[in-house]
Amino acid sequence: MNYGIVLRVLGSILMLEALFMVPSLVISIYTGQGDRLAFLITIIITGITGFILIRRKARNKYIRPKDGLAIVSIGWVLVSIFGALPLYLSGSTPTYIDALFEIVSGFTTTGATIIQNVEILPLGILFWRSFTHWIGGMGILVFTLVLLPALGIGGFQLFKAESPGPIAGKIAPRIKDTAKILYGIYFTITIIQVIFLKLGGMSLFDSLVYTFGSVGTGGFATKNGSVGAYNSNYIHFIIGLFTILAGVNFSIYYSLFKGRWKEILQDEELRLYFLIIITATIAIAINLYKSSYSSLGLALKDSFFQVGSIITTTGYSTVDFDLWPTFSKAILFLLMFIGGCAGSTAGGMKVIRILIIFKLIKREVLKIFHPRAVSPVKLNTKVLPSETIAGIYSFAGLYIALFALSTILISLEGVDLISAMSSIVATLGNIGPGLGFVGPTRTFFGYSQITKLFLSLLMLLGRLELFTVIALLAPKNWKREI
Amino acid sequence: MNYGIVLRVLGSILMLEALFMVPSLVISIYTGQGDRLAFLITIIITGITGFILIRRKARNKYIRPKDGLAIVSIGWVLVSIFGALPLYLSGSTPTYIDALFEIVSGFTTTGATIIQNVEILPLGILFWRSFTHWIGGMGILVFTLVLLPALGIGGFQLFKAESPGPIAGKIAPRIKDTAKILYGIYFTITIIQVIFLKLGGMSLFDSLVYTFGSVGTGGFATKNGSVGAYNSNYIHFIIGLFTILAGVNFSIYYSLFKGRWKEILQDEELRLYFLIIITATIAIAINLYKSSYSSLGLALKDSFFQVGSIITTTGYSTVDFDLWPTFSKAILFLLMFIGGCAGSTAGGMKVIRILIIFKLIKREVLKIFHPRAVSPVKLNTKVLPSETIAGIYSFAGLYIALFALSTILISLEGVDLISAMSSIVATLGNIGPGLGFVGPTRTFFGYSQITKLFLSLLMLLGRLELFTVIALLAPKNWKREI
Repeated sequence: MNYGIVLRVLGSILMLEALFMVPSLVISIYTGQGDRLAFLITIIITGITGFILIRRKARNKYIRPKDGLAIVSIGWVLVSIFGALPLYLSGSTPTYIDALFEIVSGFTTTGATIIQNVEILPLGILFWRSFTHWIGGMGILVFTLVLLPALGIGGFQLFKAESPGPIAGKIAPRIKDTAKILYGIYFTITIIQVIFLKLGGMSLFDSLVYTFGSVGTGGFATKNGSVGAYNSNYIHFIIGLFTILAGVNFSIYYSLFKGRWKEILQDEELRLYFLIIITATIAIAINLYKSSYSSLGLALKDSFFQVGSIITTTGYSTVDFDLWPTFSKAILFLLMFIGGCAGSTAGGMKVIRILIIFKLIKREVLKIFHPRAVSPVKLNTKVLPSETIAGIYSFAGLYIALFALSTILISLEGVDLISAMSSIVATLGNIGPGLGFVGPTRTFFGYSQITKLFLSLLMLLGRLELFTVIALLAPKNWKREI
Repeated sequence: MNYGIVLRVLGSILMLEALFMVPSLVISIYTGQGDRLAFLITIIITGITGFILIRRKARNKYIRPKDGLAIVSIGWVLVSIFGALPLYLSGSTPTYIDALFEIVSGFTTTGATIIQNVEILPLGILFWRSFTHWIGGMGILVFTLVLLPALGIGGFQLFKAESPGPIAGKIAPRIKDTAKILYGIYFTITIIQVIFLKLGGMSLFDSLVYTFGSVGTGGFATKNGSVGAYNSNYIHFIIGLFTILAGVNFSIYYSLFKGRWKEILQDEELRLYFLIIITATIAIAINLYKSSYSSLGLALKDSFFQVGSIITTTGYSTVDFDLWPTFSKAILFLLMFIGGCAGSTAGGMKVIRILIIFKLIKREVLKIFHPRAVSPVKLNTKVLPSETIAGIYSFAGLYIALFALSTILISLEGVDLISAMSSIVATLGNIGPGLGFVGPTRTFFGYSQITKLFLSLLMLLGRLELFTVIALLAPKNWKREI
């Protein structure tokens, strides 16, 4: 490993994190709720650590694939370790591990919480917690790429390791430009949602928090009742809409900006994404209407919000869907595995992988009739290389295997099987709430400290799409080179 | 499709089935319990239908792949339709669909029952029900191959379509000889288990029924308490042992017979199969001992039996494992998906597929470090062709997709999510009992008629490993050719 360059990049990430905490410090000073010191101390510690690391000399600036993996994995762990300090120091969480769980949940845009009453937290802490969604949504490394020209060389490795989905699409020839465009889109969507929420009568603070939670597909709220605490159909609709928009591949917005309508309309992943959302919304709405809802309109509204919130792995709720009939819950449970589109801020396995797996199954069925036919699998008219296909299948296999084995492990906590399963998929898929013991009105507080650490690891594995983190565990990755 | 040859083979299958019902008729005459007429009528109808079909003229004897698929799929449906008649005609089941569910469950060696009190059934019916396990375990088509020399040409297509697992292994150069050897092994194991059970004090009738249920990995019993009704550690052990033996690839026994020890010891699937059984048995035993069992020995005994019964998809029980702690249940639930070895009588996804998927995941992780390395995946020192790999992945993908969508469908019955999930895996994986609503002390009786038909389809899909049945649904398969 090229330790010099790895440490330098990690240093700049930490310095950037210190900078990201300044708004929270300002809020804490302004509100005077006693979390000032927590932020001040953290900013100093994080900044100094970053400064020390950044002064390391690197023999060359070349970032190899393995260096990229190390930077991304360790980078995410480091920002979590330092990012958890304000929560712990301000006494917002009982233990440091609780704080770590909460902030990993923030950065990975999971939104699973251990805080039973968020309404008593200082505003600075609430802001920081939700701001991590926004930072983690697009990727802290991608942001670093924009700011640090020195990383221009080899930056694609970082970008690839941090971007969700099997195919890392470069919009511009230079990766730095791609990162700039993506953050530009992200910024724009954020501002538009804040304005819309503000128009709906939300305070600026809440508008920011719920926007971070929506566009980052995170799910942290300022109220114990999540979005349901706002008795406004307008606000439910805006948040529901923006979660769904945040689950779309961001390169689609670039195409939109460039007026490439045909490209957008023919995008197979996007079409399947909307097909799933529409089908699931209608199916659940009918089920709700037939079981307990008095009006189909109300059923459609709640169904739309929840389907959008779950498939994009945001995790906001307007009602306690854990009380819904099994059919509706089963659909939501499946959506938890699917997740949003590649290249969005959403988690899960991604719609594109499901799409390609279905294409491969179809090819296999056709092969029964025409055993000698060679039929390449295409996506948006392009033939998929066999390496991409192998990668997708291995990802899906590993995802399911990890889900199954983690479910067995967590069931030692004594919860029922559905609670165990949904705790795993809710963290591995970066959703937040699950069913039963970790349903939308409950928290992860009841789990033991070791389980919270384990679930934090799952959130990171999910956010970085497994292989990035797993590769780091291989000893041969740690050999010093050049 | 070559309709002539397809109908002729289907006719011979039906005539064979009529023959298979004779022992049950004899028992019903001997016991005089009023099910004589039911068997007599069925044998006549089945025999005559078979005779009419067999007289069809075929222009040639060549069985193409698509003809083979049709014969296997339609053959299994036909034997179920006729095989269900005695249960319905004797009044053992309230409706014909109930009878169909029960006999599909028999032939597919599932063992899921809708009969709430089996102890009042006539012995002839009880025998037929369990005998279908034995017939279906090795495959009724394979048996037909042995008996009908006319099918020698193209018979491999039938064999391949009916044999469980991704690689159909021919033991002898001629498929007819392979079928003979397999049935020889099957017969031998059956006789040995009957003797062992008889020595344990079981009646000959019960010995036969429980042996059919074990070596066919079916699970139908003569008592409502399944194997638990026998208060004998010896009987529990013998049945537990033989279910595990029946979950081994039968070609292993041929190698054993030929003294090829090295081949057996190095068989990767066999090693993983026993590794899973041992690990699961110990893990569950410790969990049981820590939760409620007074002795570790007793915990090990119950754990061993249940692990063997579930991984081989038999479904016998000595205790109500639905009452076990979540950790133990989670392990059993995972075993339901894995299933036994390829080329055994067991269902599920098969150990060999899990093994190969893990090898592919491992290759993908290694590829991160050596992106340009070409590393073929090997099984027992042989390189796996990429087509086999594609087939395995598509099978696994389709299996999981079918499981997920079927779970959503069946949850309309209003059962809880775990009951819904386990109803699907218990039928698709040919296990029998599941958890909750379909736990080991419960039956499938409570489901609606349409759900019972749907679950019957899943059992057939599981037994014939999906693609065989699905291919038949494609319209272009039905064109008349030659």
